[in-house]
Amino acid sequence: MKKVKIDAYAILQRVRKENPLVHHLTNWVTIYDCANIVKVIGGSPVMAHAREEASQMAGLASSVVLNIGTLTTELVEAMKLAAGAANKKGIPVLLDACGVGATSMRYQKSLELLDEAKIDILKGNASEIANLAGEMVRTKGVDAGDVLSDKVSLAKRLSSARGCAVVITGKEDIVAEKDKVYLINNGTPFMSGIVGTGCMSSSVVATFAAVEPDLALASAAGLVCFEIAAELAAKETKGPGSFKEKLFDCIFNLDKKSIDKMQRVEG
Amino acid sequence: MKKVKIDAYAILQRVRKENPLVHHLTNWVTIYDCANIVKVIGGSPVMAHAREEASQMAGLASSVVLNIGTLTTELVEAMKLAAGAANKKGIPVLLDACGVGATSMRYQKSLELLDEAKIDILKGNASEIANLAGEMVRTKGVDAGDVLSDKVSLAKRLSSARGCAVVITGKEDIVAEKDKVYLINNGTPFMSGIVGTGCMSSSVVATFAAVEPDLALASAAGLVCFEIAAELAAKETKGPGSFKEKLFDCIFNLDKKSIDKMQRVEG
Amino acid sequence: MKKVKIDAYAILQRVRKENPLVHHLTNWVTIYDCANIVKVIGGSPVMAHAREEASQMAGLASSVVLNIGTLTTELVEAMKLAAGAANKKGIPVLLDACGVGATSMRYQKSLELLDEAKIDILKGNASEIANLAGEMVRTKGVDAGDVLSDKVSLAKRLSSARGCAVVITGKEDIVAEKDKVYLINNGTPFMSGIVGTGCMSSSVVATFAAVEPDLALASAAGLVCFEIAAELAAKETKGPGSFKEKLFDCIFNLDKKSIDKMQRVEG
Repeated sequence: MKKVKIDAYAILQRVRKENPLVHHLTNWVTIYDCANIVKVIGGSPVMAHAREEASQMAGLASSVVLNIGTLTTELVEAMKLAAGAANKKGIPVLLDACGVGATSMRYQKSLELLDEAKIDILKGNASEIANLAGEMVRTKGVDAGDVLSDKVSLAKRLSSARGCAVVITGKEDIVAEKDKVYLINNGTPFMSGIVGTGCMSSSVVATFAAVEPDLALASAAGLVCFEIAAELAAKETKGPGSFKEKLFDCIFNLDKKSIDKMQRVEG
Repeated sequence: MKKVKIDAYAILQRVRKENPLVHHLTNWVTIYDCANIVKVIGGSPVMAHAREEASQMAGLASSVVLNIGTLTTELVEAMKLAAGAANKKGIPVLLDACGVGATSMRYQKSLELLDEAKIDILKGNASEIANLAGEMVRTKGVDAGDVLSDKVSLAKRLSSARGCAVVITGKEDIVAEKDKVYLINNGTPFMSGIVGTGCMSSSVVATFAAVEPDLALASAAGLVCFEIAAELAAKETKGPGSFKEKLFDCIFNLDKKSIDKMQRVEG
Repeated sequence: MKKVKIDAYAILQRVRKENPLVHHLTNWVTIYDCANIVKVIGGSPVMAHAREEASQMAGLASSVVLNIGTLTTELVEAMKLAAGAANKKGIPVLLDACGVGATSMRYQKSLELLDEAKIDILKGNASEIANLAGEMVRTKGVDAGDVLSDKVSLAKRLSSARGCAVVITGKEDIVAEKDKVYLINNGTPFMSGIVGTGCMSSSVVATFAAVEPDLALASAAGLVCFEIAAELAAKETKGPGSFKEKLFDCIFNLDKKSIDKMQRVEG
């Protein structure tokens, strides 16, 4: 893989211009931050989890985010309805497999979502994605998820098996869709110092996917923009409180120059 | 209509002194911001949505906010119980018809709330209020909601029909109760740049209505205070993150001089 | 009681090193702040309230927080399952009796939790704790909860009766476990100027209790760290918005020197 330049700014500008509606069925912890990040980056967030309206709302949207961070059986039923409506309309559905390895409920419900709906972008950290791939992550005391080539290979295999784009976030992010792979090396340690950056990056990716049909490119561009904003925020930060405030300022003010100059992408 | 001066500061001071309890049955997205804005402006917020306690909690409160942003059938049942207790006690109930035009569930549940309880203040943007009035908003390709005189007339008609104060928020806010009308021209574009200002302004209005029986005046005064604080915050802002932080600072520090000098009200 | 020095910094450092998982079943208002404060102080928060996974998640954790701020019958059932798993595993369970005096549902559900599970740390303000102790708080027009010796005596009685540590927060915090008593005199009025400091301090105490088996010491140390950070934040604050942002910065950057120098503890 070698260094590539992606036109993330062009997609960001399309988001700002088209103002796509992004429907979320998400967790109660970061629900505000997910809504606000979509708004600040130029989209239009909506959160609606009642089974009675989940599919109608998805029918109005340009993409759908499913995040199982504080799932219940009822919420997952509403997710299936929203995903079904989205599939029918042909808009992308992103599943953030938040904490999937922690409990059997999360694992089973994630598989149900993958089996009963068409998920277009599947996103998680290395251990979550390995878990969903049904693979042994730890071998001989070494976390296989720590070896980059293993993670790329995992993402590609799961992408083929599930017919979707796969996004593995971490110090280095991996986006795989069939044979296309992007590695994104942006970001800052401050991102893992607060709650919500993973969920917010899912919302940003889904917002970009709402305007860009190449889902691998949309995912890579969304991560690049989010993480460059985080790098800019980190520069003026005294701790996690000020980092978060500045993250929203920096995403709002993100310009072509920063995106072109700061992006570190391989493909 | 001509320029008028309302004594919004006097009502704000009463809020700060009487510290009214404002009960919310609201959405999961902005629930923290709604609670915090009530606290910061001088009230005492409580959020309680279980059907088992909704009416008892309303019975302790000085006003009640119903916000359908992430409604479910269960939540609306609890709203009816809370509204019933509030009606019995004679304290004002505000309904924020958040997103009412988006799905049939929101429309039907809003009508149920309007029909089965006495709503004292009905609040939404122009399209939400038009929707509830059952009126055609778009005629001949022009959004009727964009013409100020049409919106004032809509607010007055709905106020008469429903026997409540009607608040239409937008670039220019309209408050109508029977023949009384206020137009509020305060605010800043930053307000629509973050998620939650609409919900927060509902909570502020309900807090003012908890201490001021003239509901049109209470609504206008609440909007004036909230939006002047937003204007002050916007002056020292670099983006939506710092705007929001400063909004809370500015509301907390709001003084008579700013309110008297900066208010732009017609009546 | 006389001035004592507790090694709060040593426990904070253990939190930062061991990164304990703290499972929350909490309210929807401050759920983000509770998660974020645990993260920022060095722990690892998880929020999971589905009955299907509550006990499995508690089985992975090092402590459990139950907060009844926006309780429902379903949530309390999940709390019982989580508490049961925590009791079996031998990890501490903290109950924040948020608003227990307001409604009969809160009172009854709190008693159910106290009776059906082993609560290790019971936390509330003076009126909440008195309520749970079944005692008359107001006598002859005077709030008995305002007299420090009465509050200490109340905390000790309830600790004996329930076999748990009892934490009463207020201008002066009281921690009692059997015969051990700590008074903490740190804090700033800004803490009661925003929503969520009470809930956040519960999460911090539970995080400290996850690494320190002496629950009275863990509670006192957690409160000392949280409140010293609040004092530091208050110094650079213009209002409740900036106070909250700086609170997270100050907790993250909390050092031995500040803790040793600023703590005001009696025991």
